[in-house]
Amino acid sequence: MKASASLPPLALTMGEPAGIGAEIAMAAWRALRAQGPAFMLVDDATRLHGVPVRVVAGPEEAAAVFPHALPVLHQPLAVPAVPGRLEPANAAATIASIDTAVALAKAGRVAGVVTNPIQKSALYAAGFRHPGHTEYLHELAGVATQPVMLLASEQLRVVPVTIHEPLRDAIARLTPGLIVEIAALTAAGLRQDFGLANPRLAVAGLNPHAGEGGSLGREDIEIVAPAVATLRAMGIDARGPLPPDTMFTAQARPGYDVAICLYHDQALIPIKTLDMNGGVNVTLGLSIVRTSPDHGTALDIAGTGQADPASLIAAIRLASQIAGHRSCASR
Amino acid sequence: MKASASLPPLALTMGEPAGIGAEIAMAAWRALRAQGPAFMLVDDATRLHGVPVRVVAGPEEAAAVFPHALPVLHQPLAVPAVPGRLEPANAAATIASIDTAVALAKAGRVAGVVTNPIQKSALYAAGFRHPGHTEYLHELAGVATQPVMLLASEQLRVVPVTIHEPLRDAIARLTPGLIVEIAALTAAGLRQDFGLANPRLAVAGLNPHAGEGGSLGREDIEIVAPAVATLRAMGIDARGPLPPDTMFTAQARPGYDVAICLYHDQALIPIKTLDMNGGVNVTLGLSIVRTSPDHGTALDIAGTGQADPASLIAAIRLASQIAGHRSCASR
Repeated sequence: MKASASLPPLALTMGEPAGIGAEIAMAAWRALRAQGPAFMLVDDATRLHGVPVRVVAGPEEAAAVFPHALPVLHQPLAVPAVPGRLEPANAAATIASIDTAVALAKAGRVAGVVTNPIQKSALYAAGFRHPGHTEYLHELAGVATQPVMLLASEQLRVVPVTIHEPLRDAIARLTPGLIVEIAALTAAGLRQDFGLANPRLAVAGLNPHAGEGGSLGREDIEIVAPAVATLRAMGIDARGPLPPDTMFTAQARPGYDVAICLYHDQALIPIKTLDMNGGVNVTLGLSIVRTSPDHGTALDIAGTGQADPASLIAAIRLASQIAGHRSCASR
Repeated sequence: MKASASLPPLALTMGEPAGIGAEIAMAAWRALRAQGPAFMLVDDATRLHGVPVRVVAGPEEAAAVFPHALPVLHQPLAVPAVPGRLEPANAAATIASIDTAVALAKAGRVAGVVTNPIQKSALYAAGFRHPGHTEYLHELAGVATQPVMLLASEQLRVVPVTIHEPLRDAIARLTPGLIVEIAALTAAGLRQDFGLANPRLAVAGLNPHAGEGGSLGREDIEIVAPAVATLRAMGIDARGPLPPDTMFTAQARPGYDVAICLYHDQALIPIKTLDMNGGVNVTLGLSIVRTSPDHGTALDIAGTGQADPASLIAAIRLASQIAGHRSCASR
């Protein structure tokens, strides 16, 4: 029997109501209804058309419903959602969908949370005060360490040490301590959530050719190399600093389980270049399981039927796998 | 009749004698002997074993020889080359091979120069004073503009605006003028050498999400956007600043002919991630045609027979195509 067979369903948040969340959720239900994993959507049931929908009182009802209809925990919107048009009046419902899903996960009533993309600007206008989805979830889940964003596709896993900040500031903020903290959280996350007993970390250099012995910058010698040495002293299988341009090739990728990258695009360029639609965003270090598709709200194509559900489906599958790993480990 | 049929052969330099240059040259001859393009190797003929070799007095003899034997313009080494062992005594011959090839190209006796990889450290020890191959060729070819390195593969072309310098310094050196200069030289090069009448340039942003309207850094607004505006005013089809993480996806790549990238790894990561062995380095803006494989001397595998000649073969083919375009344009 699969470990996940005994797990409760996942909760899927609505995300930005004017985006593609509802349509990719319905497409994901069509793709997964026969084999699972089962999920329950937290959304306004009155706006969902095109698939059979069943309003449920809680996740306990969702598993039996799932093969026949999309189970929905009803979260009413303030005003009808119009594709592509942001509506501040619906911000509270968008946030409530996240809050409900996280609360159910913390209570163990859902196996994990899969979040549809949100439009931060729409939420800021309504008083949302977090730099992003991940940071908000982190606060809800109540963890002391900083959030670690892992992006996973079939071919590559990457973790950016710095994320949403100007490149110049990201470089200035790099320290051995920051790299060690993120890399160690990543190693722990891969052990707990991916079933890798001894994860292999490839740590990227900062400068061209990882600084070429110092002639192309000192950070690789003074910041990255000491971080790698500390990680190894901690018993973590880390290598680096590696030349950034050759570490993501087809030949190099099988040599590690995750690439620790120093800035946003060093991580995001290779994974999106390889797989635009299949990547999944996983937040490591949370008490709950959380994944999300690796794309935005796609306001420009919302409502047109063009949205690709592949990343959401991959996110649902990965959340179920992670929940299974955690479940096994805790027995 | 193909334009290249009437062109002289190409000249291929020896590169670092302790590296893989000779073995990939022989492999390239095997792959190309039947269909061409024909080339002449400038190397020590006494060290070439495994394919039939014919010493020629000049490129004029090479075309008739090529289907039957590898034509070699004899450039004696000072001491026998040992795979993997750098030998300062051979630096002069390495440089002479480049000088000869360039002189033949400037005289129109070869259609272009394909350079095998050199080991800069070995040449520096012998008094070589250039930051790299490209800069040396630039001086030999005598051009006033700065060298522009274009990397081309089947799937992508990229030009880094800054190349071999610390990432921090590269960011500090970015100006609208520098981006405009490199991008305009690139557009001219694509017109002259690739037969693209109106090349489409995709200009990368610097910061995550191209700065997200200024909230993730000002450079995209203050440096990159003005450069793109200037390029458009010059009649060049340029777009940007584009979010760096989504511009190299399979969906985005068909929308442009070249990506103008702001730093080394922004250009090198996507092209090497997609194609480790097939990329070709082209120097734009030279009076002569010059390409080279997109890898190093591979001292670690020299002499073992493991070296992949794919990039060198692609470099020879592309040099021939470029020479053909220049030849047609000048008629």
